[in-house]
This record gives sequence, C-alpha cells and structure tokens, in this order.
Amino acid sequence: MTVTWSRRHVLETDDWAREEIEQVLDTANAMAEVLSRPIRRAPPLRGRTVILFFAEASTRTRVSFELAAKALSADVVNIAASGSSVEKGESLLDTVRTLEALGGDVLVMRHSSSGAPYFVAQRIDAAVINAGDGWHAHPTQGLLDAFTLRGTLGDLAGKRVVIVGDVLHSRVARSDVHALVPLGARVTLSGPPTLLPAAWRCGDLPAGVEYEPDLDLALDGADGAIALRLQLERQQAGLLPSLREYARVWGLTEARVATMRPGAPVMHPGPMNEGVEIDAAVAHGARSLIEKQVANGVAIRMALLYLLLVGAEPPTPPLLEGSA
Amino acid sequence: MTVTWSRRHVLETDDWAREEIEQVLDTANAMAEVLSRPIRRAPPLRGRTVILFFAEASTRTRVSFELAAKALSADVVNIAASGSSVEKGESLLDTVRTLEALGGDVLVMRHSSSGAPYFVAQRIDAAVINAGDGWHAHPTQGLLDAFTLRGTLGDLAGKRVVIVGDVLHSRVARSDVHALVPLGARVTLSGPPTLLPAAWRCGDLPAGVEYEPDLDLALDGADGAIALRLQLERQQAGLLPSLREYARVWGLTEARVATMRPGAPVMHPGPMNEGVEIDAAVAHGARSLIEKQVANGVAIRMALLYLLLVGAEPPTPPLLEGSA
Amino acid sequence: MTVTWSRRHVLETDDWAREEIEQVLDTANAMAEVLSRPIRRAPPLRGRTVILFFAEASTRTRVSFELAAKALSADVVNIAASGSSVEKGESLLDTVRTLEALGGDVLVMRHSSSGAPYFVAQRIDAAVINAGDGWHAHPTQGLLDAFTLRGTLGDLAGKRVVIVGDVLHSRVARSDVHALVPLGARVTLSGPPTLLPAAWRCGDLPAGVEYEPDLDLALDGADGAIALRLQLERQQAGLLPSLREYARVWGLTEARVATMRPGAPVMHPGPMNEGVEIDAAVAHGARSLIEKQVANGVAIRMALLYLLLVGAEPPTPPLLEGSA
Repeated sequence: MTVTWSRRHVLETDDWAREEIEQVLDTANAMAEVLSRPIRRAPPLRGRTVILFFAEASTRTRVSFELAAKALSADVVNIAASGSSVEKGESLLDTVRTLEALGGDVLVMRHSSSGAPYFVAQRIDAAVINAGDGWHAHPTQGLLDAFTLRGTLGDLAGKRVVIVGDVLHSRVARSDVHALVPLGARVTLSGPPTLLPAAWRCGDLPAGVEYEPDLDLALDGADGAIALRLQLERQQAGLLPSLREYARVWGLTEARVATMRPGAPVMHPGPMNEGVEIDAAVAHGARSLIEKQVANGVAIRMALLYLLLVGAEPPTPPLLEGSA
Repeated sequence: MTVTWSRRHVLETDDWAREEIEQVLDTANAMAEVLSRPIRRAPPLRGRTVILFFAEASTRTRVSFELAAKALSADVVNIAASGSSVEKGESLLDTVRTLEALGGDVLVMRHSSSGAPYFVAQRIDAAVINAGDGWHAHPTQGLLDAFTLRGTLGDLAGKRVVIVGDVLHSRVARSDVHALVPLGARVTLSGPPTLLPAAWRCGDLPAGVEYEPDLDLALDGADGAIALRLQLERQQAGLLPSLREYARVWGLTEARVATMRPGAPVMHPGPMNEGVEIDAAVAHGARSLIEKQVANGVAIRMALLYLLLVGAEPPTPPLLEGSA
Repeated sequence: MTVTWSRRHVLETDDWAREEIEQVLDTANAMAEVLSRPIRRAPPLRGRTVILFFAEASTRTRVSFELAAKALSADVVNIAASGSSVEKGESLLDTVRTLEALGGDVLVMRHSSSGAPYFVAQRIDAAVINAGDGWHAHPTQGLLDAFTLRGTLGDLAGKRVVIVGDVLHSRVARSDVHALVPLGARVTLSGPPTLLPAAWRCGDLPAGVEYEPDLDLALDGADGAIALRLQLERQQAGLLPSLREYARVWGLTEARVATMRPGAPVMHPGPMNEGVEIDAAVAHGARSLIEKQVANGVAIRMALLYLLLVGAEPPTPPLLEGSA
C-alpha cells in the first residue's frame, strides 16, 4: 500500500498523522543517501524556484533550506526583510503574492508574527513552508529532531524525551512535541515554571506530555534530552534570576546527563549559549547529536521540498539518480 | 526580413524605434512560453554572468532579473551597496570596472542618481541595463507594462492609456510613455499639478501625451489605466494636502474604473499603498493586471538579456529547447 | 615528475615552498583558459559546496570567490555576519562547525581578527581559505599579485618589486612578500616609518626584503610597483600629517613611475583612493595591471579550490572539458 502525499503546505505538524510524519522521515532517509554521494545532487526540482523569505535573522535554517533546494537542483532566491519592499511599507500579502507571481513554487518563510505562514498559505497557490513563526512553530526543526532521535534510538514508541528550558517562548519545543508524540514518544517538559505556558503550568498538558519541575527527576532514566536556547533578553525581562543561577538549576551538565539511560543522546537546536543551557563538555561530547541535527536538517528539508513539489511517488530512479 | 538587434545597452527607450520595442515584446512572448513549461529553463546564457548591482532597495525588480537570468541558465551575482566597496568610498566607476573585470557580461544597475547608468555604459564594455535611476527612467518597467497591455488589448495603436499620480518623481511614468507612445498608444497623464514636471505643466508635452487635471475626465472611456506609487514622504514635503485627500481625488476606485471602456485593465508597478493611490477592490479585482505585470517582468527581462548577449537571431531550437 | 598537492587549507603562504606557489600559478593558467572560453564553466566541483563567510564588507574578493566556485560548477552559499547567528552571540567555532555540518566542503572566511582562520582550520575537517584576517594575511591576494607579475615579467627571479604605503596595517603587503620572495623576487618596502612594523623599521627584515624610506630611490629602476590602499582613518589616528601631504610624498604619480624600468607595471589591490596613494593617470594608464589583477583573482581562486578539492592531478580533460 502506498501512502499518498496530500499536504500543500508545511505549517505545523500538530494535525499530522503518524503516517505522514513517518513518510517525511523515510523520504529524508533517501535524501540523506543523496547527500552521502561524492556529487551531492539529484535532478527532481530542476527549473523549479524556491524563495527563501526570512524576515528574521537566521543562518542554519536559511542555509539548510538553500542547500536542500540546490541539492535537488532547484533555483533559490533569497529575500531578506531589510532591502526588500517590506521596508517600503508593502503589505506581507502583496509581497508574497508578488513572489508567487514571479514564479516561486515554494515560499519558505520565517516571520516574527505567529500565524503569518497560515495567513499567507490561505491566500496563495504556491506551497508555503513555515521556517519559524514567532513563538508558535518551527515544524522542520521538529521533524529533523524526530528524524535524528529515530536514527539513534530506532522506533520512538515508548521512548521518553526530556525538553528543558524556556518552553514558553520556544517554537522548537512546541514543534518537537508535535513531531515526537505522534510517533509514540513521551515528552517530559522541564524548566522554570515562569517559562511554561500558563495552561500547561496548570496541568492542562497535551496527551503524551508531562511537566516535571525538577530537572534531575526529569532526566533520570530518560532516553534523550533536548536543551532549548535561552533568549538572553528573558533575563532582563525579569523572568529569570541570573544566567549563573539558570545554568546551575536548568543547565545540561555532564553530571546530569549521566543519569539518563546509558548513551542517551543530547540535542540542541542551536545557536547555543554554552555554559548556560548546556555545558560545552556535553555539547561537544560523545552523546551530542547537535552536528548530526544540522546535517539531518538538510535531508528533512529536501524531503519536504520533494514531497510538496513532486508528490508521494517513492523517490526512485531516475528521479534521484545521476546528477542534474 | 529579419530585424537585427544592435543595442549594446538598455538605458531608456526614449530613442528606440517602434520595431525595436516590438522585437523585445515578441521575444518576450517566446520567453513566456519557456516560463510556462514544467521545467522553466533554457540554456542560451550558460557560462555567462549577470551582475545585479542594486544601490537602492528592491524586491520585485531584483528578483525578477535574478529569475530571468537563471531561467536562461546564466550565473547571477548580487551586489548591494551596503556591504560592498562602495561603503569604502570607492568610486562608482571603479566599482563597475571591477565588476566587469571579474567577468560580468551584463551589469544590471539600480542607482539613486539619474543618469548613472549612462555614465557607466560609456566607460565599460559589458552590457548595462538600467533597473531604475533616480527620477529618470525604468525602461524594463515601461517595456513590461507595454507587453502586459498589448497582451490584453492587442495592437496598442490608437489606444488611450491613463497614467495617474506623482508623475514628477516617477521614473515609471516616463518609461511607460517612452514604451507606449512608439507603439501608437496615446497617454493621458493625470494627477496633482504640483506633481507634474514644470515643462509638462505648462503644456510642453511630448507627442502622443496629454495632461488632464480632472481624473474623472481622464478615465472616461480610457482603454487602460496605470496608477503610480505615491512616495509617502511627498506629503511631508508639503506637495500634498493629506493622504485621505489624495485618495479621494486621485485614487483609482471601483466607481472611477467603471467609467473606462468595458473591461479596460488597471495596472500598478508596485509596491502599492492600497487605499491611497488604488483601492484594494480594484487592485485585486477582475480588471487588475498587477500580478500579470510581475510575471511578465520576468519574460521581458529574459528577452532583454537574450537580445543583448545572443543577439537578434530568433530564439528557436536548440537555443530555447531542452534544459540546460 | 608530478608534484603532489598536500595542503588542506590556504591560511598564508609564509611556509609554502617555491614549488607549491608555482603549482598554484600553473594551475591558474589552466583556469584562465577556462575563463577565456565562450562558456566559462567546467564541471570538476559539481555537487560540492563552497561557503563564503565574510564577517567584513567586501565586493571584489567575495564576488571573485563566488565566480571562481561557480565557474567550476560548485554551489555557493553566502553568509554575512549581519543577519547570521553571529548576531545572536553564537561563537565563531560553533558557527563554522554548523556550516561544515550543513555540508560545506570549503569555508572561505574573512574576519577582522588576525589568526581566526588558523583557529578554525585546526578544529574542522572542511578546507579553510583565508580571504583576509585582520592585519595578518590575505594569501589569495598575494598569489594573484604574483601570478599577475609573472604573467607580465616572466620568471620573477631577481626582479625587484616596490610595495609602497601603509605596510603596518596591510595584510596585502605581508602576503605579497610571502608569495613573491619564494619565487625569487626582491621586495623593496617604502612608506612612512610610522606605518612600518616596529621590527621591520629597526632593520629586522625578512630575507629578500629591504626598506627604503625614500620612495624615489625605491622606484628607481624597479621592475614593478604595488601601491597599498590607505585606510583613511589612519590619518585621523594621527599616523599621517594630511592626505595631501601623503599623496605628495608617497603617491604613485606619473613622474615617479617613469623612473622605473621601461614598461614596469603598477598594481593596486583595490579599492583605490585615486589621488591619494595612486594618481588616476597611473591607475588607468598603460602600465596599470589593476583590472588584470581583478580578472586573475578569479583564476587563482579557481586554482586553489581545484587543488584543495580535487588535488594535484593535472587539470586535464575531462575534468575541465566541456561544460557542467
């Protein structure tokens, strides 16, 4: 039985079925194989245009999408908010309609406003991929994290993953939950109660998710852990006592990760504040999958571009064979 | 009889013959066909380099040139004034000579100084395309507007097109006149007298152009209308009473466009101030060719790049056949 | 006997053997031939990724690398410090490890800190090319200058080249010395004593290098001259009397270059302050190789990318034949 791909956009995976997420991860495996070749290039998106519209600063996500699109032979156009018509006061909708009229097949967008990609996706025909919208979602990060954990732990059913840090402001935390839980994983959130969404703080947690305010209890026997980036400006806003105090209570240290299951991996979406949310020895230690996450991000984004533009037929020869 | 292409640069079309403009538009038709293919790519500019040197912010024009060049398989290099040697005080001439020495075949330039592309074109061997110079000219916009109107209205001979708004500061208005009038269209300018060039205000208008201060009279029975972008800072400079007053007197409203010939199209070079120079209902209504303009811009720029670099032989197989 | 290429990085040529430098220059000759073809493109780096990480503003060097990489069919990704994770406080090392994990085969980096490329090269597997680090080195400029001089003067053994200007702050001067001296050239430095490294001012000069405070004596009978860019802020720092005074005493004027050997060439790394360190008549005169330097820069960077990624086998068919 072949699963058919029917999504037109990638906005968030909160309403995706397990089969859809698995299809993305399986396709990413095929893409990782392309990336392992001496000539990392396949032809399926030749003559197609991917527009990267990043209204917030980004290195790894933008470059990851750029390399993913190029590895599939697409043309890539970069648009930053500065230097663009957005500076001239053009509406977001007119800007994206223009980008579509120019010939964009996929619009990858990062925006400071939660929901902006939804607003856009309802109004244009091009495919939209959310590369991060405000505090809301970062679905390609969630998928690459699930892909990375599955690559190390195998089937995620019953596995317990700790996500620690500033959950309230983290689109990564939300999207990790929405990618991991459908695959059967259980997620334990930990971090300062002031940095947890109010509803979650009161116990109204999604299925498969629990909150454990004591990080040591949370990590004990866990199958994996994800440290979230601490936005340093939160401390100035009075939500945190001090960075040193934060590191002491919530930082992923070697002593703490030693209490997880033997060899349980540690991840971080980057960029890291080493010594704050994660110690350098952990970030660059044997359990760290942080560089693997970066590499896997290219494969996941290739998979999504492929599924959106080519559809669900399995990526077999000649689509991924030879070079463009 | 084949027309031979002899222009080395595209600086402004004010001295172009009807045949030259028609040749560009006919070539753009062939390019639009390339853009309609599943794989939007043709090989004629492989190994050629197009340098986009934009000293002013731009999204649609820059991206349009980038996609046009890539659709013809050229390499594209983006140079912004910020982050470039221009910041180090290098002269414009030395900068462009460097870009040429690096291997640029075509230099597409936008500059705040009227005439800058002329100055450059006289001093380098590479082809220069003016992508907008100060208040002076924006010839590729004029050509794409003519191409878009011809695509809807057919032969433009005897057709009457209204251009309304801030004519004084509009390089688009000037280039529209210089593309439309040679094709036989008549242009009616309308807008505040304070925003009309002094000579034109005094009745010294180019052949084929008239000024009608009453927009309702101008639009009555017209075959098409182009609303110009209002630079909002003009109001602060005292050239306008208020934006609301401007919109009331000079805005393209549904009521106004209803007085044009049935189905007469409406255009705008973008980015739009909706509710000021054009109502949202008109901008996104059935008469609007605004997104068509954007798409046609890519075809026109492909045509110009092709004519400048490959010359006048008709773009037939194998030049536009297959994929690069 | 074939020379084998063994360098993993290009950080500075101060420890390179004459044979290594000659191998780069000979390879650049083959690359210049590729650039002279109607279709300036060869396939050897297809599917490889070159990341241009420029933490300082640059036009010619960045574009030169970009065109060099594209001429060899590599993918190119541009990263500027602004708009990147560097703005979020990520460490340089984490940034470059991320760029490597994304799939970068070569990291071309410009950085304001002397030694930054060394620090990075010791810690990542990707090849690192120093595109200018602080006051320290700019080895690809040194190699292209040597390539340009050899192209005009032939064998550089025994030739005397004057480098004049702000030697103290010039990474170009240092790298010119490290490329020219191994080829047998003698270098005469000239310029204000306040703008000479302290050790060199005291007579502790490298082998093959002398200091002549009188520019007229230095130029007399010289085989070539290189004027260095004057950072205009040096004058504000009190290291110079006035720009007019500087130009009078240290500027390359027509009268001065007339005292060199007949036809002896003049170079400048750009961007120039015409009328300060070099007169316009010299910069654009018959002896000037300044635009040749720019063109040669692309060939040198192609040679280095080729040697680092493909190795030392001679660039023969089919590697450089046909088009990618």
